[in-house]
Amino acid sequence: MRVSIIGATGYAGAELLRLLYEHPQADIVHITSESHAGEKISSIYPHLRGILDETLESMKEIERIGKDSDFVFIALPHGHAMAAGKALEGEGTRIIDLGADYRFSDTAVYEAWYGVRHTHKDAPRVYGLAELNREAIRSAKIIGNAGCYTTASILALAPLAKSHLIDMGSIIVDAKSGASGAGRSAKQANLLSELYDSFKAYGVAQHRHTPEIEQAMTVLSGEPCVLSFTPHLVPMSRGILATCYARLKDGVEQEMVDAAYGKMYGKEYFVRLLGRGGYPATKDVRGSNFCDIAWHIDERTRRVVVLSAIDNLVKGAAGQAVQNFNIACGFDEKLGLDHIAVYP
Amino acid sequence: MRVSIIGATGYAGAELLRLLYEHPQADIVHITSESHAGEKISSIYPHLRGILDETLESMKEIERIGKDSDFVFIALPHGHAMAAGKALEGEGTRIIDLGADYRFSDTAVYEAWYGVRHTHKDAPRVYGLAELNREAIRSAKIIGNAGCYTTASILALAPLAKSHLIDMGSIIVDAKSGASGAGRSAKQANLLSELYDSFKAYGVAQHRHTPEIEQAMTVLSGEPCVLSFTPHLVPMSRGILATCYARLKDGVEQEMVDAAYGKMYGKEYFVRLLGRGGYPATKDVRGSNFCDIAWHIDERTRRVVVLSAIDNLVKGAAGQAVQNFNIACGFDEKLGLDHIAVYP
Amino acid sequence: MRVSIIGATGYAGAELLRLLYEHPQADIVHITSESHAGEKISSIYPHLRGILDETLESMKEIERIGKDSDFVFIALPHGHAMAAGKALEGEGTRIIDLGADYRFSDTAVYEAWYGVRHTHKDAPRVYGLAELNREAIRSAKIIGNAGCYTTASILALAPLAKSHLIDMGSIIVDAKSGASGAGRSAKQANLLSELYDSFKAYGVAQHRHTPEIEQAMTVLSGEPCVLSFTPHLVPMSRGILATCYARLKDGVEQEMVDAAYGKMYGKEYFVRLLGRGGYPATKDVRGSNFCDIAWHIDERTRRVVVLSAIDNLVKGAAGQAVQNFNIACGFDEKLGLDHIAVYP
Amino acid sequence: MRVSIIGATGYAGAELLRLLYEHPQADIVHITSESHAGEKISSIYPHLRGILDETLESMKEIERIGKDSDFVFIALPHGHAMAAGKALEGEGTRIIDLGADYRFSDTAVYEAWYGVRHTHKDAPRVYGLAELNREAIRSAKIIGNAGCYTTASILALAPLAKSHLIDMGSIIVDAKSGASGAGRSAKQANLLSELYDSFKAYGVAQHRHTPEIEQAMTVLSGEPCVLSFTPHLVPMSRGILATCYARLKDGVEQEMVDAAYGKMYGKEYFVRLLGRGGYPATKDVRGSNFCDIAWHIDERTRRVVVLSAIDNLVKGAAGQAVQNFNIACGFDEKLGLDHIAVYP
Repeated sequence: MRVSIIGATGYAGAELLRLLYEHPQADIVHITSESHAGEKISSIYPHLRGILDETLESMKEIERIGKDSDFVFIALPHGHAMAAGKALEGEGTRIIDLGADYRFSDTAVYEAWYGVRHTHKDAPRVYGLAELNREAIRSAKIIGNAGCYTTASILALAPLAKSHLIDMGSIIVDAKSGASGAGRSAKQANLLSELYDSFKAYGVAQHRHTPEIEQAMTVLSGEPCVLSFTPHLVPMSRGILATCYARLKDGVEQEMVDAAYGKMYGKEYFVRLLGRGGYPATKDVRGSNFCDIAWHIDERTRRVVVLSAIDNLVKGAAGQAVQNFNIACGFDEKLGLDHIAVYP
Repeated sequence: MRVSIIGATGYAGAELLRLLYEHPQADIVHITSESHAGEKISSIYPHLRGILDETLESMKEIERIGKDSDFVFIALPHGHAMAAGKALEGEGTRIIDLGADYRFSDTAVYEAWYGVRHTHKDAPRVYGLAELNREAIRSAKIIGNAGCYTTASILALAPLAKSHLIDMGSIIVDAKSGASGAGRSAKQANLLSELYDSFKAYGVAQHRHTPEIEQAMTVLSGEPCVLSFTPHLVPMSRGILATCYARLKDGVEQEMVDAAYGKMYGKEYFVRLLGRGGYPATKDVRGSNFCDIAWHIDERTRRVVVLSAIDNLVKGAAGQAVQNFNIACGFDEKLGLDHIAVYP
Repeated sequence: MRVSIIGATGYAGAELLRLLYEHPQADIVHITSESHAGEKISSIYPHLRGILDETLESMKEIERIGKDSDFVFIALPHGHAMAAGKALEGEGTRIIDLGADYRFSDTAVYEAWYGVRHTHKDAPRVYGLAELNREAIRSAKIIGNAGCYTTASILALAPLAKSHLIDMGSIIVDAKSGASGAGRSAKQANLLSELYDSFKAYGVAQHRHTPEIEQAMTVLSGEPCVLSFTPHLVPMSRGILATCYARLKDGVEQEMVDAAYGKMYGKEYFVRLLGRGGYPATKDVRGSNFCDIAWHIDERTRRVVVLSAIDNLVKGAAGQAVQNFNIACGFDEKLGLDHIAVYP
Repeated sequence: MRVSIIGATGYAGAELLRLLYEHPQADIVHITSESHAGEKISSIYPHLRGILDETLESMKEIERIGKDSDFVFIALPHGHAMAAGKALEGEGTRIIDLGADYRFSDTAVYEAWYGVRHTHKDAPRVYGLAELNREAIRSAKIIGNAGCYTTASILALAPLAKSHLIDMGSIIVDAKSGASGAGRSAKQANLLSELYDSFKAYGVAQHRHTPEIEQAMTVLSGEPCVLSFTPHLVPMSRGILATCYARLKDGVEQEMVDAAYGKMYGKEYFVRLLGRGGYPATKDVRGSNFCDIAWHIDERTRRVVVLSAIDNLVKGAAGQAVQNFNIACGFDEKLGLDHIAVYP
C-alpha cells in the first residue's frame, strides 16, 4: 500500500514514520510539512538519520499526493484536516485523520468544544477506535482516529457502559499524560526545567477530549452521558494512565464486572486485561500498541475504579492509526504493530 | 528548646534535621536509628556532611532521651511510636509523632486499617494538622502529625465540608505522590529504572490514608463520610498533588465556594489560595511548607474539582511537625519554616 | 534457529526476549532463571504479558538445553558463564555470552580486574564486536559479546587507533550511562529517590570495562595502550554517551580524521556518522541498535573529542548479541534489528 | 543593606530572590525586567506567591535604582551588564554581576570568546570566586561573579594548579549540567520531551567558560594554561558535576595531593572535601551553596581525576553572589546562606 503522511514533523507524525517504516505492507510515498518543506525529515528528527532521509514536501498539491496514495494519514492540528479531507473527496485515496476533525458524529459538539466551524459536515467518516468500531472501519473512506486520552478512557469504561453496570451520571476520569502529548512546539511551560520533578493538572472541566468520551459512552450505553474529565501532566515523555471512577448500579456484583471485561476484550490482542486488582503501568506499554486494563471494586463506596495505560503516541495516536489501516486493508490487525514495549 | 529525633534515617527524619538545623529555637540533642546506631548521620546522608555530623544512638534508652528533651519527634514506621509514647508518658517531654499511631480518635479504626493492635489507647493525643486544630495543638502532650496524602486532601476539602457545600457521599480523592513517599528501603519496584518514565496507581480502595481523611471530613461536616481515595506514583522525588471531586449541593453557587475558602484560609500563611480556576504545581512548593489550593466548578456536572499541592516531606511530614512544634511552643508559626520553594 | 536464554530475568535478558521475539528466524525454546524457575516470565516482566508467557526453567540441565538449541545466549553475571560454556563444550550449540567471561584473549587480565579465577581458558572464543571482528564471529563457537561502555568507547576510538592518528597514551574516556546499566536488583543507591535529579561518577580508575577498551585499542593500533576510563550515572533509564579525548599526533589534519571514520564505518549500517562537529544524543538511539558517532577537533589543544551514543541494552548488550547471531548464522546483519529509536 | 536585582526573571534572578528574601541583612528595594515591567514577580514565578509580590520595574532609570541601593545584583545576559555598570559608575552603589562582562582581566579574551565589544574596559572589577579572591572582593566596586561551570572546575583544580602538582597542558574538564543552566526561554531543544531520558554534549571546544577557567589556572599556577572543556546536558533541573583530568608531575605522590586540598580548603565552609576516593553527587548540594570535592589518583596512567559538584544556581550563580555580598559587607560569609541541601 502506498501511504503518505500530511504533517510528518509533529510527534505523532514521527511515530507514524517509525511504525510505517517497519510495516511490511506500507510504502511511504509522500511526507509533508509546511514549515520544513524542502528539508529532510532526518534533519528535523536525527533519530531517523540513515533510515528515513526523505524530503518533506508542502501539502499544497494535496490532490497529487492523494492520487499517489492508497492511504493518506493526516497528523495536523485540529481544524486543518477538514480542508485536506475535502480536497481528497474525489480521489480514491482513503484517509486516516489523527486529529479531532472527523471524530464527532454531531459536528455541533465539535464546533462548541473546539471553537472552529466545521466545513466538512457530510464527510463519510467513522470513529477510529478499532476495538469498538471494527466493522465500520473496514470500508470507511475517512477514519477519525480516536484521541489519546479518549482511547485510554473509553477502552477502560466501555464494558461497564455497554453492560449497563454503572450509573452513567457518576463517571469521573482522572487522566495523566506524559509531556509528548503537549507537542513539540517551543513553549516555556513545557521546558524540562519547568516540568521536571513537578506534577500538575490543566484544562479542568474544559478539555476537548471530554465530549469525545461522552459520545462513546452515550453510544455504548444508550443513555446520554455527561462526565468529569481532568487531565494532568506527568514529568515523563510518553504514556497515559486513566483512573476512571463510576458508581456501580444496585445489585451489580464483582463477577458481573469481570464478565463484562472478559466478554468485550477476551479476544482482543491489543487490550490486555490484568483483571480485578491489577495495576497497569505506562512503562509496560511504552513504545507498544497495547492498552493494559485493570479494575478494582470498592464495596465501601460501591464504586468501581478502572485503570488503563497506553502509550499516547502509539495506541493513543500512530499505532491506533496503523491498526485502523490494517483493518481498512483487510490485513491482520497486528501486522507491523506487534512490538513489545521498550522496558525499562 | 531541646529536641530529639527518634528514627532520623528515613526521609522524613532527614528532612526534620534540615528544618530543625535552620530553626533558631531548636537545639538537636539526640538522634536515633536502630540499624545505624554508632554511625554518624552524615555517613548515611552525605548531604549533611560538615553541617550535621552527630552520631546516631539507639532508642533503647528512650527515657534518658526524653529527660534531655523538651520535644521528641518520632519518625518511625507505624506501630512503633506507641511504645515510645508510653515510655515517655511520665516525662515532661512532649511528643510529635510523624507516623499514624496517634492520628485517630477511634483506635478501632486504626486497628482495622493498619492491622496492628493499639497499645496506647488512652494517650493524651491531638490530631496535628495546624490549620484545623491549632488550639488543641498548643497544649497537647502528644501530637499525631497529619499524614502526607491526608494533609493535601483534607486542606483541599475542609472548607467545602465545613460550609456544607458538598454531598459528603460524593467525595473522590485522586492523589499523586513522588517516590520519596515510598521511603528509602531497597525495593526493586522503586528503582529508578522501574519507575522512571512511568506512571501507575497503587493501593486502590485500601490505602491507609483513607480513614484519616474520612475522620477529618466527618469532624468538619458533622456527617459520617465514606470516600474513595486512590494514590499514584509519579516519577519524581517529592511532591503530592491531590485532585478532589465532590458533587455540589443544590443551590450552591460559585461565590459560596470562593467564600468558604477565603473564610477558612484567608489568614493562613502556609495555605496559598490560587482561587477559582488556578493550577497548583508541586514544583511551586518543593522544599517549602506551603499548600497551594485552587478549585474549579463544573456546571455541566455540578461537581467541584479541588487541586492542592504540597511537598510530601515538608507540609506532608517534617514541615508540618515543625509548624506544630512552633504552635506548641507559642512561637510564631513561621519560625524556621519561612523557606521559599527551590525552583526550578 | 532454536535459541535459548540463560539468565532471562535481568534487563539484558528481557531485552533479548524483546528482540528475539520480533526476529523472523529465531525460535525461543528455553529461558532460565535460578531465582524464578517455575514462574512465567510475564509475571516477572508484566510488559511481556500476552506476548511471551513462557515458563522459566533452571539452568541445571544446561546440557539438555544445549541439545535443544542452535544458539544459547548467556546473560549471567560475570564468572557464571564459564561453567555453562564448559558444560556445552561437547554440544553442537553455539554460545553468545553477554557477560565478560569470554571477552579477553589474555585471561590473566580478566582475572586481575574481575577478581575471579578463569576456568575455561582454552575456550574457542572470539570478541563479539561486529564492526571490528565480523569475520571471526562468523564461525565462532563462543562469542564474547562486547560490553556496553566498551562498545561505545571502542567504536568511537577505533578509526583513530587503527589509522595511527592519536597518541595512544593520551586517551581518556569519560562515559555516562542510564541506570539500567546497574541492573534490576534492589539497592538503596539505585532507588529513584536517590538517583533522580542527581548526577555522579563511580568506579573511577577501577571500572572493569577499562581493560576491555585497552585490549581493543592495543589490537587496533598495534601499540600497548593504557587509558583513563570514568563511568557516571545519569538519571535516566537507558543510554550511554562516551566522550573520548585523545591528543592528535603532529601533522594530523582534520581531513585525515574525517577520512579515517569514513573508511572504517562508511558501509556500516549500525554506525551512523554525524561527522565533524555533530552531537549524538542517547535519545536518538533509544531502543535501537545504532551507534551514533561525531568528532570535534580542537586546534587550540590539538585534541580530538569523539562523542558516541548507544542504547546500553541494545547495541551495548542484547542488540549486539542479535547482530552477532545474525553474522554467525549468515543472515543479513539487520534481520530483526532494523528498529527505529523510540523518540521522544 | 538595600539591594536591587537587575534582571530578576531569569532562573538566576529568581534564585537571588529566594536567597536574599531569607537573608537577615538584605532588604530588596528594586527588581527589574524589561519584558515584564509592571507585572508582579509572583505572576511570573508562582512559587513566590504570598511571599514576594513585588512589582517588576524597567531598568531604564538605573541611576535612580542605584541611588536607592547599597548593592545592585545584575543577572542579565552577557553584554548587557556593561552599560548598567557604566551608568552606575558615579553612584556609591556596589555591583555584583552574575554574567561574564566583568570576569576577565584581559577584555580582549572576553571579546574574542563572546563576540561582543567590551565597553567598560577600565571598570574597577574583581573576579568573584570567594574562595580564591576573598581579599579583593572585600572592597571591590564591581564583582564579576564566577560562572557556573567555572566555579565547579576552578575549585576542583585550584589546589593542584597552585601547588604545581600537575602538567598544566594536560587538563581536561568534562562537565555536566542540569537544564536550568540553559535558561528559561522557550526553545524546542529544551522541552522536557526532547531532553528527558537523554544525554548529550554541546559546545565542544568552544564553550565560553573555557577561557574563564584558563584565566584562573594561569593565575594560580603562574603558567599559561590552555585546556579542553566539554559541557553536557543532564536530564535534570539543577546541578553541575565536573570531572577533571590532569597528568601528575613526576615525583608527585598521593599525600602531596591530599595536602594541597587540605591546605587550600581546610577552613572553607562551603567547600566540602570528600577526600581521596570520594564521590560527590549533585543531589547532595541541591539548593545549597556547597561545593563537594573528591579526587582519585590513577597510578596506571599517572593521572589525577577530580570530581566536584555544585548547584549551578546557588554556588554557580546566586549563592556565590550572596557569598560575595557577605564578604563585601563584612558579614559572616554564611549569613543567609547556611542552607542544607534539599534531599532527596
